[in-house]
Formats: sequence, C-alpha cells, structure tokens
Amino acid sequence: MEQTANPISLDTATQRLAEGVLAGRRRALSKAITLVENTREDRRRQANQLVSYLLPRSGTATRIGISGTPGVGKSTFIEAFGLFLIERGLRVAVLAVDPSSKISGGSILGDKVRMEQLARRNEAFIRPSPSAGTLGGVTRRTRETMMLCEAAGFDVILIETVGVGQSETAVADMVDFFTVLLLPNAGDEIQGIKKGIIEVADLLVINKADGEFRDAAKRARRHYANAVNLFRPKNPHWKTPVVCASGLGGEGIDTVWESAGKHRALLEEHGLFEKLRRQQRQRWFQQALEDSLLERFQAHPEVARKLPELRNAIGQGQMSPHHAAANLIGLFMGDPQQN
Amino acid sequence: MEQTANPISLDTATQRLAEGVLAGRRRALSKAITLVENTREDRRRQANQLVSYLLPRSGTATRIGISGTPGVGKSTFIEAFGLFLIERGLRVAVLAVDPSSKISGGSILGDKVRMEQLARRNEAFIRPSPSAGTLGGVTRRTRETMMLCEAAGFDVILIETVGVGQSETAVADMVDFFTVLLLPNAGDEIQGIKKGIIEVADLLVINKADGEFRDAAKRARRHYANAVNLFRPKNPHWKTPVVCASGLGGEGIDTVWESAGKHRALLEEHGLFEKLRRQQRQRWFQQALEDSLLERFQAHPEVARKLPELRNAIGQGQMSPHHAAANLIGLFMGDPQQN
Repeated sequence: MEQTANPISLDTATQRLAEGVLAGRRRALSKAITLVENTREDRRRQANQLVSYLLPRSGTATRIGISGTPGVGKSTFIEAFGLFLIERGLRVAVLAVDPSSKISGGSILGDKVRMEQLARRNEAFIRPSPSAGTLGGVTRRTRETMMLCEAAGFDVILIETVGVGQSETAVADMVDFFTVLLLPNAGDEIQGIKKGIIEVADLLVINKADGEFRDAAKRARRHYANAVNLFRPKNPHWKTPVVCASGLGGEGIDTVWESAGKHRALLEEHGLFEKLRRQQRQRWFQQALEDSLLERFQAHPEVARKLPELRNAIGQGQMSPHHAAANLIGLFMGDPQQN
Repeated sequence: MEQTANPISLDTATQRLAEGVLAGRRRALSKAITLVENTREDRRRQANQLVSYLLPRSGTATRIGISGTPGVGKSTFIEAFGLFLIERGLRVAVLAVDPSSKISGGSILGDKVRMEQLARRNEAFIRPSPSAGTLGGVTRRTRETMMLCEAAGFDVILIETVGVGQSETAVADMVDFFTVLLLPNAGDEIQGIKKGIIEVADLLVINKADGEFRDAAKRARRHYANAVNLFRPKNPHWKTPVVCASGLGGEGIDTVWESAGKHRALLEEHGLFEKLRRQQRQRWFQQALEDSLLERFQAHPEVARKLPELRNAIGQGQMSPHHAAANLIGLFMGDPQQN
C-alpha cells in the first residue's frame, strides 16, 4: 500500500512497539496482540492508537477463513496448508475465532501442539483465540490481530473457526475467501448442511478424501455441487467450487490455494478487491459502534438493576417489549421520568 | 389467554381507545394503529401504554408470514386465502412489512384495490405497510399493529412481505408459520433461490400452478423438495413441505391452511408454542433496545457532526474502525476528551 502521511502520533513506548511490529519482530507482534486483547480502558486507548497507526501498512495480505465442525480435520488441514504456503516462500499467520474457547478450555488452537510442525517454523505465527467474552469482543480482537500480523509482513492470514453459532458469519465477514471443510458423508447422510453455509462459502472442501473414504468423498462432492447450483452466487463472477482434499495426505491443498488465487485475481480484475476492503472497514466500524454502545448500556448501574425485572414482565406477557425498551433507554439517557 | 390483573393504568382517552379495540370496533382499531405509527414522543408514550395494556389479550391468533418476489402473485394468493378463511368462520387481518414502500410509492398493499373482494368483507381488516423509515421502525409498528389486531379479535394475521433484503428474516421472526411463494420455473432456471430462504421457510408454495404451468410447477416442486432435503430443519419435528397452489384458481389453498394447522398442533403438542411466544417477546425486546439506542446515538448533535468525517477516514484506511468508534462513543457518553 502506498505510504501516506500518517495522521496519528504515538507516545514513545507505543512508537517503539509499532516499529518492532513493522520490522516483523515476533516478540513485538506478540506484545502488540496482548495489548489489543487487554480490556483495561487506558490499554484500549493505546491499542486503538497503535492499530490506527499501523493500518495504512496492512490490507494487502490474502485473508482466508477456514471453517468446519469439530472432527472435520481443521488442524491437520491448516497445518498442511500452512507448510505448503511456506514452501512457496510465503509467511503465514494462523488466528482463531472461537467464542466458546473459554468454556471448552480452548477447543481450537488451545495450544500449538496440534500444529506442531507449523508452530516450529519461523515463517509461521500461530495465535490462539482470545479466551474471553462475547463474539463481538472476540471478533474485534481477531480483526485487530489480523491488522497487526499484516503490518508485520505476513502474506497469508488463515482464520480458523468452529462451525458454531454466528462465529462463522463473523469470520466470513472479515476474510476475502471463506472455505468450509466438510466430511465425506454421502447419500442420505448429506442432509443437514448448516444454516446459510453455502451462501457464505467461496469454496467447499470435502476433507479426509483419502483411503476408504475416497469414493464417498466423490459422491459427496457431486451432492454438494448440486446444492451449490440451487443458490444465487454471492458474487456473480464466482461459482463456489466443490473440491476434494486430504489434510493428512496433503492432496488437494494446491487446488485450494489455486482457487483462492483465482478468486483474488477475479476480484481485482473487476475492481472489487479495494471495494471489499472498504466495505469491510465500514462494516467493522458499524459493528464496533453497536457493540460498544450496548456494552455501555448494559454496564449502566440503573439499567443493570432494572433489566431482570423487565425481562421477567416481558416473558410473562405483562408489558410490551417496546414499552419496556423505551423505559430502559429513558433511564440510560437520563430522560425525565416516565412509565 | 388467561386474564391476569393488568398492572397498567391508562388515562381516560387511551382507556376508551383500548375498550373500542377490545370490542372489535374497526374505527377504534384504525385509530390505535395510527397511534402506534406516530413517531412523536408523547404519542409514542401513549402507544406504549396502550400496547402494554392490550398485550395480555393478544397472543393466541395464528400468525402467518407470506413472502415472495414481485410477480409471484402474492396479492391474489392472499385474497384467495383470506376469503377461504372467512368462509370457515375466521376473522383475518392482513398487514405488510415493506421498508421500500416509501420509495416505490407503496409497492405492496399501497391500496386495497388489489384485494378488492377481501377488502369489502367485514371479517377482514387490511392495513398497508407504514410508509416510513428504517426496517427497524417498520417492524416495530407491524408487531404492535399485530398485537392490536389480535386484541380486536382477529383469529389469523397474514403478514405480507416482499422478498427483499432483511425484511423476510424480520417477518419470519414475528410469525408462527412462514410461507414462501415461488414461481413454477424448473430445471436450470431454478437456480437462484434467495439467500437463506429455505432455512426460514416452514412451507414452500409453488404458486401459479395452473394452466400451462401445471407441469413446470410439478417439476419445480421436486427440485425444491430435493433442496429442502439438503438442509437441517429449523424444527426437528417439522420437515418443510413443498406444495403447488394457484391463487387464481383457488387450488391448494386448503393444503396451505391445513399445513399451518398441523404445524401449530405440532408446536403445541411439544410445548413449543408458548416457548415460541416467549422467545418472540424477548427477541423483540432486545431488538427494540438496540434500535432505540442507535436512534438516540445517531440523533446526538456532536455524533451527527463528527460521523461523516470519521466514515471518510475509515474508508481511506486512515483510522482504525474501532478507534473511530471509541471516539464517537466517548462523545456520546460525555467521556473526558481522548483521541
């Protein structure tokens, strides 16, 4: 990205941290990520300054989302994919969005043991999901971490997510290319595709397409290809491919990377890549506004005190939801008393 | 619903209006709906009181959503459906959610001419979409109008929506049974099902299944039935049926009503109906909170002044979206100056 005059001026400590990140130093990067994960108010302020300062130096990496239910082989696939990219001279960062990681004790990427070979490489950087809080909080930190990794010179960012709740949509929203891993079930078992998954996927990968599952994977591929045909594509220029791969055997990994490359070239060709980046930023802004606003609202002492009582009245059908909302907003805003 | 002691006490004028609605008087109902559509603050307050007061007298009607792109024959279908229900001794209210109606000059239900026969019946009440503002505003008013119609003794509420943007999800969220009308295209033309539509539909209706389209409709029915099979059902006890109908010829209307009845019986059998009502109320509360909060935020003079400048900086990648959001929230909340 071109160098523009940066309107942000940093204090000495933050400036040093920023320079460390820009020089691609791992310790500085780790420290910067820990800073954006900190929720203390003064730290948040420092993190905001840092991210704003580094923002013009990010935005050109390829951002790939990788989703799939537990058991589909995400870790093995990501490790193989990461090693494949490093062989091609690229630097790879692996992040995770998993709002459940606190409860499950770090179900994905809880440690680096599961990607042992990749973790040992200098060209790779693996960071587990921040283990706290709401999906909004987790996605904010992941987006900022992504920016930091890009500023530190990583070429490809892989963002892993479990196929649960809204985390998939959140990740699809922050990447350029969203990949969904599926198991090679076939025939009747294929029913049960997750809500909306085909609409957000840029690529469907039938994983574990090796050994005894090879034929089942081919059948599954046909089924999913039919399903893809039933839907309007997200991008009129791109028809979501369905491919077979084996994270374990390394087969098909090249096809996935090729597909991501074609998709990127296509976006750039139609002037859609810069547009996507702008849209992503505006959407993050909107979401950040809504999340922070709700956070402040819920932290308001009178609101927090009154909320359970109103929820109860609403549950029992004794008060209009809109009426109750108007009362609470009134409390929050310090409006003259009403009822 | 059982009569509980109502905790809301009304002023004389509102009390009279409430009694008129409860007595099923059309003029009182129309006046009450006009009141919930009014955005003036004192009127809003009165409307909140009225809806809260009437709420315990609503909640038992069958709420059916009817969606479909322009040209699919929604008006004709709804008119035939409404007349069918009246023949069975039921009173029917027809509402619409169409956030685009201001722009398009009332594209759906803009006048009652399109449902002339139904509009003439005493047992029917047709109300066009409120022609103003955001989807949030339109859905709030539609939900409150629905409550009022139920308190006025209507047995079935039909909520029409164009298959555009998020209005479909909003309507699916407020009804018990969400019906999607489709055209009898077949074969290759079938591709292009709208994003997420199969996941929110409780029933798919191939409309205009008459005359020369009869065979095409049957083929389309098979295709859509296959597509439905690919997805996890919204409710494990309910597999979304795909049926053919003709609003014009009146064929299949009985099947649609029968299907809605089976669905309702099934919900009640599994104790899910009361649960659905409670969920709907809690979800409306959450949404009302978020909508009002954002409204107040955007109306704040300093926020309104600063917003375009920040959007611009974000678009150009000069400032972190989260940083900009933190600044604006600080302004709104009167936090000490930061940057």
